[in-house]
Amino acid sequence: MTYAAPVSELRFLLEHVAGLDRVAGTERFAEATPDMVDAILTEAARMCDEVLAPLNRKGDADPARLENGVVRTPEGFGDGWRAISEGGWIGISASPEHGGLGLPMLLTTAVNDMMSGACLALQLAPLMSQGQIEALEAHASDEIKALYLPKLVSGEWSGTMNLTEPQAGSDVGALRTRAEPRGDGTYAVTGQKIYITWGDTDFAENVCHLVLARLPGAPEGTKGISLFVVPKYLPDAEGRPGERNTLKVVSLEHKLGLHGSPTAVMEYEGATGWLVGRENGGMAAMFTMMNNARLGVGTQGIGVAEAAFQQAAAWARDRKQGKAAGTGAIVEHADVKRMLATMRAETFAARAIALMCAGAIDMETATGSAAQAARAALLTPIAKAFGTETGIAAADTGIQVHGGMGFVEETGAAQFLRDVRVTAIYEGTNGIQAMDLVGRKMKDGGEAAFALTDEICEGAEAAKSSAPDLAHAVYEAAETLREATEALVAADLEARFAVAVPYLRAFALVLGGHAHLAAAVHGDAARLRLAEFYIRTILPEHASLLAGVSEGAAVLALEAGELAA
Amino acid sequence: MTYAAPVSELRFLLEHVAGLDRVAGTERFAEATPDMVDAILTEAARMCDEVLAPLNRKGDADPARLENGVVRTPEGFGDGWRAISEGGWIGISASPEHGGLGLPMLLTTAVNDMMSGACLALQLAPLMSQGQIEALEAHASDEIKALYLPKLVSGEWSGTMNLTEPQAGSDVGALRTRAEPRGDGTYAVTGQKIYITWGDTDFAENVCHLVLARLPGAPEGTKGISLFVVPKYLPDAEGRPGERNTLKVVSLEHKLGLHGSPTAVMEYEGATGWLVGRENGGMAAMFTMMNNARLGVGTQGIGVAEAAFQQAAAWARDRKQGKAAGTGAIVEHADVKRMLATMRAETFAARAIALMCAGAIDMETATGSAAQAARAALLTPIAKAFGTETGIAAADTGIQVHGGMGFVEETGAAQFLRDVRVTAIYEGTNGIQAMDLVGRKMKDGGEAAFALTDEICEGAEAAKSSAPDLAHAVYEAAETLREATEALVAADLEARFAVAVPYLRAFALVLGGHAHLAAAVHGDAARLRLAEFYIRTILPEHASLLAGVSEGAAVLALEAGELAA
Repeated sequence: MTYAAPVSELRFLLEHVAGLDRVAGTERFAEATPDMVDAILTEAARMCDEVLAPLNRKGDADPARLENGVVRTPEGFGDGWRAISEGGWIGISASPEHGGLGLPMLLTTAVNDMMSGACLALQLAPLMSQGQIEALEAHASDEIKALYLPKLVSGEWSGTMNLTEPQAGSDVGALRTRAEPRGDGTYAVTGQKIYITWGDTDFAENVCHLVLARLPGAPEGTKGISLFVVPKYLPDAEGRPGERNTLKVVSLEHKLGLHGSPTAVMEYEGATGWLVGRENGGMAAMFTMMNNARLGVGTQGIGVAEAAFQQAAAWARDRKQGKAAGTGAIVEHADVKRMLATMRAETFAARAIALMCAGAIDMETATGSAAQAARAALLTPIAKAFGTETGIAAADTGIQVHGGMGFVEETGAAQFLRDVRVTAIYEGTNGIQAMDLVGRKMKDGGEAAFALTDEICEGAEAAKSSAPDLAHAVYEAAETLREATEALVAADLEARFAVAVPYLRAFALVLGGHAHLAAAVHGDAARLRLAEFYIRTILPEHASLLAGVSEGAAVLALEAGELAA
Repeated sequence: MTYAAPVSELRFLLEHVAGLDRVAGTERFAEATPDMVDAILTEAARMCDEVLAPLNRKGDADPARLENGVVRTPEGFGDGWRAISEGGWIGISASPEHGGLGLPMLLTTAVNDMMSGACLALQLAPLMSQGQIEALEAHASDEIKALYLPKLVSGEWSGTMNLTEPQAGSDVGALRTRAEPRGDGTYAVTGQKIYITWGDTDFAENVCHLVLARLPGAPEGTKGISLFVVPKYLPDAEGRPGERNTLKVVSLEHKLGLHGSPTAVMEYEGATGWLVGRENGGMAAMFTMMNNARLGVGTQGIGVAEAAFQQAAAWARDRKQGKAAGTGAIVEHADVKRMLATMRAETFAARAIALMCAGAIDMETATGSAAQAARAALLTPIAKAFGTETGIAAADTGIQVHGGMGFVEETGAAQFLRDVRVTAIYEGTNGIQAMDLVGRKMKDGGEAAFALTDEICEGAEAAKSSAPDLAHAVYEAAETLREATEALVAADLEARFAVAVPYLRAFALVLGGHAHLAAAVHGDAARLRLAEFYIRTILPEHASLLAGVSEGAAVLALEAGELAA
C-alpha cells in the first residue's frame, strides 16, 4: 500500500477552520507565511511518503527486541529517525534558541499527523522527545536546558516519559519511585516504571528519561511528586554521553500492536538524576508534557485513520466483485461508499478539532490570551479522545472494507487496528479525557464551552445564505449541545463522570459539523457532498448521545457488585 | 481468567423472551421439558468451563500449522473436540435417525454461545459440521445421508464449507471450480478454494468438504452452481475412510486472530465428489447451510462478548486504583460501570435476538408456519450482524477497561478482539446481512417486520402497568422503527442499500429494548437496573440511526472516484 500524506486536506483545514492566518498574523509566528507553510508541508510529506511509510509493515513483522539488555530496533528505523531529525521535524515548535524552528503548533500537529499515518511505531519516538522538550522549556533550569535541549531537538538524543508503575496506572499519585538528594545537586533515583515507550533505542546516542519520583518525606499523593531528568549516559564535562547510569531495560512488553516500538519495563537502581522544576512540583511539569502529548496522541489517531482510509479506498477501487455499476469495483457499492465516506468524514472532523486545538495553543503562546488558553484546555481532551476513537473506528471499518482479506495480516489492514488501539489508552485513557472535560475543564462553569458553542452558532449564521439546510442542522446541534452543557455544569461531579464519554463524543460531533459546514461553504463540490453526508447521517448521533447525558442516574444506580458478578 | 458459562442468563431468556415453552409445547419438541433443558445447559456449561475454556489462550499462543502438508492443531484441541463430540453437542438439533438429539435450535444456540465464549477457535469446528449436517439433511440423497450424517454427528468426521475463491469473495456467482461427471455417479472436482475454516484437522478421521462448483455448460452466475461432497478419504465399501482423495491444503492464512483454527487454501485436483441436491441447485443448498451458519456466527459474537465481559468485570473488581468508593476497585468508577453495563446490556440484547431467531426456526420446523419462517428469515441477518457487532464492541470495551494491560497480549483481553473481528466478515459480511434484511427479507413489503413491530408494541402495552416509563420508551422506539420501515420499503433498492447497515442496527436496538423490557417486568432488581440503563442510554441511538435512514440520497450522491482518490 502506498501512503500519500494528505497535504491538501491539511492546507484546507489550516486555512479555513484552524485560523492559520490569525496565528501567522501575530508577531511570534509571523514567519508562518503561506509559502513557509507550503514548504514545510511539502517537504515533510515527501519524507513521510518516501522514508517512513515503507517502514510501517517492516516494524510490525520485525519487532523491537531486547538482546542481552540492549534494545534492537527494526531494520530501517534508525534511518527513519535520522530523516526525521535532519528534517527538523522533532523541534518544529521548539525554541530557535535551542535549534528549534519556532513554528506554530499547527505545523507540529500537521507534520505529526503525516508521520503517524506513515509509520506510527516510529513516530512515537519523536513524539516523546517533543513532550520532553516542552516540559524542559517550561520547567527546567537554564543549565539543564542548555545541555539537553539542543541534543533533543537535533535528535542526537531521544526522550521518554516515566510515569506509570505497576500499582499506579491512571492513578499517578500512588507511585513509589524514590529520589534521594545526594547533596551535590544530584539525586539517586530508585524504582520500577512500566509502559515506557521507546524506553531505549539503538539509534540515539543517549536516552533522556523524565521520571516522576518522591523525595524523602514528600506529602502523599500527587502533591508529593517531583520530576527528574535521568539520562542513560551521564553527560561528561563537555556534555557528551559519558558514564553509564544505573538504569536498565528489564523487559519489553508483548503487545497487540506497535511492535516496532519498544515498550519497556525500566529499573532505576540509585540512578543519577537532576530535579526539573521545583520540589513536589512534578505534576505541574508532567501536565505540560502530557497536554502536549495528548494533542499529539489524538493526532496519531487521525494519522492512522487517514492511512487506513487510503488503503481501504485503494482496495475498494481495485477489487472487482459482483454487479457493481461503473468500473465494477466494490467502491461503487452503496454500503462500501458509506463506509469510506464515514472514514473520510470523521477523519476530517477529528483533524479539524486537533488543528483548532493547536491553533488555540498558538494564540495563547503568541498573545497570552486567557480565553485562548481556556479554549486549548477545553479542546485538548476532545482532540485526544475523538482523534483516537476515529483512528480506531476507521481502522476497524478499513478491515471491513477489505472483507476476508482484512483478517489476513499480509494486507496490513489489521495492523492499523492493532497499532492504533492503544492510543485510546495511553496519555490518559479516553475515559479520563472525558472526565477531565466535564470536571477540570468545566470548573469555569462552562464558560469556555459556551464561548465555543457561540462561535459554532455564528459560523452557522454566516453559512445560512450559501448552505441553509446544513447551517440549520449545525445551529440546532450546537443549541442542543449548549442545553446539555448547562445541565451538565449544574450536576454534581459523579453524575457528570457517569455521562462524560458520551458527552465528549457529542461535543466532538458538533465541532465536526462546524468544520464540515466550513468545508461546504469554502470547498469544492466534493467537499460539499461529504459535508452533506456528515451533517445528515453522522451528526444526528449527537442527539441520542446527549439524550443519554441527562440519564446519569441510570448509570449511578448500577451496582458495582452486580456488574462484576 | 476463568470463564463461567452464563447458564442463568440463557435460562432467563429462553423462558421470558425466546418462547421455549411454546416450542416445547409442540409435538416435535415435546422432549424439551424444563428439566431436560436444565440438564443440557448444565452439562454443556461444565464442559465449556472445564475442558474448552482452558484451551482458549493455548490455541492463540500455539497456532494451528501446516507441516509437510499435514495440519497440526494446538495441544489439547483434540481432547476438546472429543469432549464436544461425546457430549452430543455437535448434533443437538440433528435428527435422532442419524444419532442427533433432535432438540430445538434454541438449545443448539445456547450451547454454541457457551462453547464460543469458552474457546472460539475450536468452536468453529463443530459449527462447520452443524452447517454441513443441516445441508445434507435437507438436500442430500438417502445414500449420502446414511453414510455421512452419523459420522458427522458423532464427530468421527468433521465438515467444512467451500465457497470462496480468490476472485469470488462475497460474489459467489463468480466462482470457477469445475466438476466433471465421470459417468459412474461421481464427479471430478478441480479448483482452488480459499478461507476454508478447519480445512483439515488431525483429530477427525475424515474431513468432508462441501464444495460449490460448476458442471460443464452450466449457466453463468449463481444459477450455474452445484454442491458436492468431497471427502478427504474416500469411504470404502464399509463406509470407513479409505483411499486418499486428490485434494490438499496448500497453505494456512496468517490471521489477526483465531490462531487455533486452521484457515486453509484448498486445492482440488480432480478430486472425487458426489452431487448434493440437484444440478445447478447449489445455491439453495448453500443457503440452508449459510442461514444456519449465520445464526451460529452471530452467536459466536455473543459468546465472545460474554467472555470479554466476564474478564473485564473480574479485572475491574480486582484492580485497585485512585479514590474509588467502596472497595477501592475501579469497578466503582462511574465510567467503568458505564463500560461494563454497556457490555452486559448489549450482550443481553444480542443474545435475546439470537434466541428469538432460533425460537422462530423451531416453530417453523415444528409447525411449518409460514409466518414463523418469515420471522426466522428476518431475524437471521439481524442476529448475525448485531451479535458479531456486539462481540467486537464488547471485546474492544474490554480492552479499554483493562487500561494499559489491555494492550499487553498476556492479559488475553486483546485476543478476544483479534478472534471475534472476523465474525463481522465471514458467512456474509455484516454489510451483506444488512442488504439481505432490506432487500430479500423485505420482498414481502415489510410484512414480517411489521408483525414483529406489532409484537414489540404489544409487549410494551403489557408492561405499562409495571414499568410505565420504560414501556413508553420502547413503544415509541417501535413506532419510530415502523415509520422508518414504511419509508424503506417505499424506496428503491439502491437507496435501501445505502442505509441498510444503520437500519439493521436500529432494528436490533429496538429488539433489545423489547428484551430488556421483559427483563424489567420478569426479572429481579438487578435486571431492572440494567434495563433502565439500556432503555435510557443505549436505546436512544435508534433515533439518530433512523434519522440517517431517510438520508440515503446523501450516500448515493457521493462519487466513488472521489472516495477512492
